[in-house]
Amino acid sequence: MIFLMIQNWICDFSFDRLEKAGRLYHQVKLTKDVDDLFNDTKLDAIAVATPVSTHFDLAHKALSNDKHVWIEKPMTEKVEQGRALIDLASKKKKVIFVDHTFIYTGAVRKIKEIIDNGDLGDLMYYDSIRVNLGLFQQDVDVIWDLAAHDISIMDYLMPFKKFTVSATGSSFYGNGIVPKSLLTIYMENDVLGHINVSWISPVKIRQTLIGGTSKMVLYDDNNPSEKVKVYDKGVDLYETKEDLYRLKIQYRVGDMYAPKLEEIEALAVGTEHFADCILNGKKPMTDGRAGLEVVKVLVASKESLRKKGAPVDLDVNY
Amino acid sequence: MIFLMIQNWICDFSFDRLEKAGRLYHQVKLTKDVDDLFNDTKLDAIAVATPVSTHFDLAHKALSNDKHVWIEKPMTEKVEQGRALIDLASKKKKVIFVDHTFIYTGAVRKIKEIIDNGDLGDLMYYDSIRVNLGLFQQDVDVIWDLAAHDISIMDYLMPFKKFTVSATGSSFYGNGIVPKSLLTIYMENDVLGHINVSWISPVKIRQTLIGGTSKMVLYDDNNPSEKVKVYDKGVDLYETKEDLYRLKIQYRVGDMYAPKLEEIEALAVGTEHFADCILNGKKPMTDGRAGLEVVKVLVASKESLRKKGAPVDLDVNY
Amino acid sequence: MIFLMIQNWICDFSFDRLEKAGRLYHQVKLTKDVDDLFNDTKLDAIAVATPVSTHFDLAHKALSNDKHVWIEKPMTEKVEQGRALIDLASKKKKVIFVDHTFIYTGAVRKIKEIIDNGDLGDLMYYDSIRVNLGLFQQDVDVIWDLAAHDISIMDYLMPFKKFTVSATGSSFYGNGIVPKSLLTIYMENDVLGHINVSWISPVKIRQTLIGGTSKMVLYDDNNPSEKVKVYDKGVDLYETKEDLYRLKIQYRVGDMYAPKLEEIEALAVGTEHFADCILNGKKPMTDGRAGLEVVKVLVASKESLRKKGAPVDLDVNY
Amino acid sequence: MIFLMIQNWICDFSFDRLEKAGRLYHQVKLTKDVDDLFNDTKLDAIAVATPVSTHFDLAHKALSNDKHVWIEKPMTEKVEQGRALIDLASKKKKVIFVDHTFIYTGAVRKIKEIIDNGDLGDLMYYDSIRVNLGLFQQDVDVIWDLAAHDISIMDYLMPFKKFTVSATGSSFYGNGIVPKSLLTIYMENDVLGHINVSWISPVKIRQTLIGGTSKMVLYDDNNPSEKVKVYDKGVDLYETKEDLYRLKIQYRVGDMYAPKLEEIEALAVGTEHFADCILNGKKPMTDGRAGLEVVKVLVASKESLRKKGAPVDLDVNY
Repeated sequence: MIFLMIQNWICDFSFDRLEKAGRLYHQVKLTKDVDDLFNDTKLDAIAVATPVSTHFDLAHKALSNDKHVWIEKPMTEKVEQGRALIDLASKKKKVIFVDHTFIYTGAVRKIKEIIDNGDLGDLMYYDSIRVNLGLFQQDVDVIWDLAAHDISIMDYLMPFKKFTVSATGSSFYGNGIVPKSLLTIYMENDVLGHINVSWISPVKIRQTLIGGTSKMVLYDDNNPSEKVKVYDKGVDLYETKEDLYRLKIQYRVGDMYAPKLEEIEALAVGTEHFADCILNGKKPMTDGRAGLEVVKVLVASKESLRKKGAPVDLDVNY
Repeated sequence: MIFLMIQNWICDFSFDRLEKAGRLYHQVKLTKDVDDLFNDTKLDAIAVATPVSTHFDLAHKALSNDKHVWIEKPMTEKVEQGRALIDLASKKKKVIFVDHTFIYTGAVRKIKEIIDNGDLGDLMYYDSIRVNLGLFQQDVDVIWDLAAHDISIMDYLMPFKKFTVSATGSSFYGNGIVPKSLLTIYMENDVLGHINVSWISPVKIRQTLIGGTSKMVLYDDNNPSEKVKVYDKGVDLYETKEDLYRLKIQYRVGDMYAPKLEEIEALAVGTEHFADCILNGKKPMTDGRAGLEVVKVLVASKESLRKKGAPVDLDVNY
Repeated sequence: MIFLMIQNWICDFSFDRLEKAGRLYHQVKLTKDVDDLFNDTKLDAIAVATPVSTHFDLAHKALSNDKHVWIEKPMTEKVEQGRALIDLASKKKKVIFVDHTFIYTGAVRKIKEIIDNGDLGDLMYYDSIRVNLGLFQQDVDVIWDLAAHDISIMDYLMPFKKFTVSATGSSFYGNGIVPKSLLTIYMENDVLGHINVSWISPVKIRQTLIGGTSKMVLYDDNNPSEKVKVYDKGVDLYETKEDLYRLKIQYRVGDMYAPKLEEIEALAVGTEHFADCILNGKKPMTDGRAGLEVVKVLVASKESLRKKGAPVDLDVNY
Repeated sequence: MIFLMIQNWICDFSFDRLEKAGRLYHQVKLTKDVDDLFNDTKLDAIAVATPVSTHFDLAHKALSNDKHVWIEKPMTEKVEQGRALIDLASKKKKVIFVDHTFIYTGAVRKIKEIIDNGDLGDLMYYDSIRVNLGLFQQDVDVIWDLAAHDISIMDYLMPFKKFTVSATGSSFYGNGIVPKSLLTIYMENDVLGHINVSWISPVKIRQTLIGGTSKMVLYDDNNPSEKVKVYDKGVDLYETKEDLYRLKIQYRVGDMYAPKLEEIEALAVGTEHFADCILNGKKPMTDGRAGLEVVKVLVASKESLRKKGAPVDLDVNY
C-alpha cells in the first residue's frame, strides 16, 4: 500500500484506493501527485506510509519543503539516509516522528515506568519471541518487518549503547527471503538483546522477557487481561568466605503482580504526541535518533545474516 | 553429585552419599574405589553419572574392561574423546548408551512417529525455548546443560547433516559462566535449528516449534494434558503466470489435533531399552553416534560463543 | 438503548441517538413515532431492539401490520406472549426471527455439526460458565441477561424436551437484582443442563462442557485460536459376570482435536439468514419456537430463584 | 481401601495390603483385628481411613478407648453421628482431627490470611468448579467425594452460618449414582456458596472464585506457578442524589497480584498440626465442628438432590 495521509490531502498512486478514501473522508483533497502536498504551503506535516525504499526521498522532500514528517518504521533503508534526515530536520527545526507503534501502548509505557523506578535492579537482558503465521512479505526479510518492533521497544526500555549484532536464518523457499531469524545484540554493561522472529509459525506468540538483577518482567502481548507480569524472582551472587573465587547463586522466588494498564489505542496516543511535539516544540519519544538506532541494527543484521551469524559492529558514534 | 550406579555396586567419592544409598538399597555393594567395579568380572555394565570432565576416562576404562556403558549427557567434553569411545566400543562389541532422556518420552516418540509418517511434509526448522529459574551450575555454560537436550531431540527427530553453528550469549555475573544463550544450527537441505536456553528466566518455558511444509508441531512440555499439538497450517508457494519470479505465499489454516501420549516414565523406557540392546545385540536409539553429534555441536558452540556468534563449521565426516 | 432498526427507518425515543444515527446513515428516515413504521406499507420487516418489557407490544403490532419481525433475546417477558406472537405470525405467514446471536457463530455451528454426526454418542449434559465483570444491568436478573445465551445454545445443540428448572442466587447489593446464579434444567433422557452466570466475577470466563457417552466438547469462547476442542474421552460402563449389580467404570482417554472454525461475524450470518427466510419462505434456526423455549426457562427460573432452588415444572406441551 | 494407620500398628482386612505395608515399614505391628489397637494402652491416636459408613463406629470406639482420632473426610455419614463424636471427644478430652486436606495447603492458608487482613472487603460468594475424569466411585454420589473438599475450604475461609442447601444432578448411567452436581449454599449476610462437581468431564478443572466487595480471588489449583491471584476489581454501589432508589454500579478494574505460596506438602503440615494439638492441648483447624459442618451440608444436599433442587434447611443450632 502506497499512500500519504495528511490533514487535508490523501496521496496515493492507486486510483481505486483514492476513490475509496474519498468516500470515507468527505472533506479531504485527493491526488496521485505527491508534489501537490509539498507545494501546499498551508500544510504543516506529512505522514509517509510507503515502502521503506521510498522513505528517504519522500521524507527528505517533506523536510526540505518545511513540513514536519511522520515516517513508518523502519525510518530508512540505510544508516546514512537516517543521519541525513536527522541533520536536515535539525537544520529546518522540524519534527521527525518515527512510527514505532508499540512505544505508545499501555504495556510498554508501564514497563518503562517500572524500569525507571529502578524496580528491576540492573538490567541484564531483553529476550523476545514474535512469531506468527501472517502475511509473508515478498520484498524484505522478516527481520525488517517484525524485529524492527522489538529493537525499537528494547531501545526505548533499555537505552544502552549497542555494539555488535549477530543474526542467523535461512531462506526456506528458495526465493531469497528469510522468513525466520534469530538476532543477538551486544550492548554496553554486558546487556544482551535476543530476538526471535518468524512469519512461518503454526501459532502466534508475542512474548518478551526482561531480566533485571532484582525483578523480571514477562510481557505477553497475546494475554488480554495480564499483558505485563512483574516477578520478584532474581538471582543473587554470593562469595563464600572459604573460596572467594567460587560463586554461589541463590535464587529468590517471590510475589508476582500484574499492574493495570491504560487501554488507549497506541495510534491515538502517538498522533496526539506528534501534534504536541509540533505545537509545543517537544522531542518525540520516537524521534529520528530512535529511528536511526533501529536502522543501524537492521542494516548490521542483514550483513550478519549473509555471513551466518558473524558479528557485525555498529557505528556507535552518531 | 558424583556417583556410579550399577546392578550390584554403588561407587561414590562421598561417604555420606554411599551410606544413604546403602540404607535405600540393602543388597548393593558400596565402594569409593571405582576399580572395584572394573575388576568385577561378573559385572556387565556400568552407568557413568559424573561431571562431564570425567566421562571419557571412566567410560574408556569400563569399555576396556569389557563392560557395556551408560553415559550421562553430554557424552564427552571433546569430539576426539567421543570418537575414541565409539571406536573402542565397536572393537569390544559393547554398547554405548547416552542418556538423552527426552528421546524416551511419550511426547518425543509421538512426534517422531508423526514425522516418519510424512505428516509434516518437508522439514524446515526446529525452534526451541528452554528457560527456567533453576539451578545455576557453576562449572559449565547453560548450553552444555540445557541445549544438550534440544540438540539430542533435534538430531533424533531431524537426522540431517549439521554444517555450521552460531552461538551468542553473555556472562552477566562476571564469573565467566554464560547463563543465557541463543544457538543456531545450519543443516543440509536448508533446515535450521534455533535454540534459546537460559537459567535466569522468571518463568519456566519448555516450548518447541517444528515446522514442515505441510504441518507444524507445537511441543509444550509444560502443558500437562496437551503436550503435542499438530497444526494443519502450512505455507504454500505459488508462481503466477504473469511473473514467474514473483512468489505468492498463501497460508492454509486448518485443524489441530493433540494425540494421546504414552505416559511411561522416560527413565524406565530408557533402562529397559539399554538392557534390550545388551541382551539382544541391538543398537541404542541414543548410541555413541547420537552422543557424538551433541558433543560436536556443543564444542562448536563454545567456540562461536567466544567469537560473538561467528559461524563455526562442524566436522561432518565422522 | 431503545431503538428500532429498519431498512429505511430508524425509530428511537431519544433525539440525540436519532441525530447520531442520521449522521452515520445518510439515506435513512428518522422518527420518534413507531407508528410511522407500522404505517409504511412498503416496509417488509421491523427489528425490535428495545427493553424486553416492550417486545411483545412492538412485535405484535409489527406482525399485525404484516411485517416480518426480528426480536432481540429474550423474545418476550411472559410465556403467553411468546405463544401469542407465534400464533399471530403463523396466521399472518410472517417470519419471527429471535436474535440468539451465538447460534450463528462458527463455533456453535461446528459443534452442532459434530453432534449431528453422532460423534459424541448419546448426549448427557451441557455445563456452562459465563461470568464477567461487565455491565451490571439494573432492570433484570443476570439470568435474563446472560443465561439466555446458554439456554438458546443448549436448545439448539440438544433439542430435548425440558421438564424442570431449579435456580439459585442472591441479591448481594440489597437492590433486589440477582447478579450471580446457578441454573439446572432437567430434560428428557436424563439429559442435564447446568448454567453458571455472573456479572460480578474478577475475570471473564466463557466455558462450556458438552458431555456425550463417546466424546466430549470443551467450547471456550475466550480462546482465540482453539475455541472448540473435541476430546476422545468417554466413560464406559461394564457389568462383570460375577456381579451384575456392580458396575465398573472404565475411562478412555484418547486424542483431542480442535477443528477449524469459520470466522464470519455472527450478526452478518444472522441477518443474511433472516433475509433468506423472508425471501424464500424458510424457517429461521432461531424462530419463535426457539425464542419461546428460552422464555419458558427464564420465567420458570425466576420463580425457582424466589423459592431458593425449588423445582419448577415447564409446560412442555406447546 | 480399608486400613488404619497408627504410630506402631497397621490394621487392614486385606492380608495382601498388610504384607505390603510390612515390607515398607519394618518396625510396625500388623493386624487384621482392629481391637488390637483399641486394647493397646500405649497407643495415643488412631487414624481412621476407611469407607465413610464405618467412620462413626471406629472413631467412637477409638475415643471410648481414650485415643485421639484422625478421620478421613467426610467425618461421618449422619449429622447425629458427628454430634455424638464431638460430645464424646469433649467428655474424653481427646482430639478429633478431620482430614480436610486442602486447609493445610499453602494456597488456602494464603487466601485465609488475605481474607483475615480484610483485603477482600465484605465477602459475597464462594464459587468453585472441581471436575475431572477420574475414578468413578461406585458407592457414593460425586458430592460426597468432591464437594466435601469445597465445603470444607469454604467453611474455613468464610465461617458464616449456613442456612439452606439446594443441590441438583442426575444419574446418567442408570446405576443410581450421581456423577455430576450443582450445589448452592445460602449463608448468613446473604453470602452464597456455589459448587460444581463432576467425575465425567473431559478435562480437569479446579477453579474457585471468591468475591468480596473490595477485591476478588481466583484460586486455580491446576496453575503450577500462580495458584492464587488477587484482583483489585470490585463493585461499588452509589446512590445518586436525584434518585435515592436508583443504584448505579461502577466497576473498578485494577492491579492483580499473585502472592508467593509455601510449598510444604499439605499432609505433612496436617500431621504436624495433629501432633501439636495432641501434645499441647490445641484445637485443630479441622476439628469435629469443621467436620460436622461438612456432614450437615452433604446430608442436606442428598435430600435436595432427590427433590431436584428443593431447598433443605440446615440445623444451625449446634
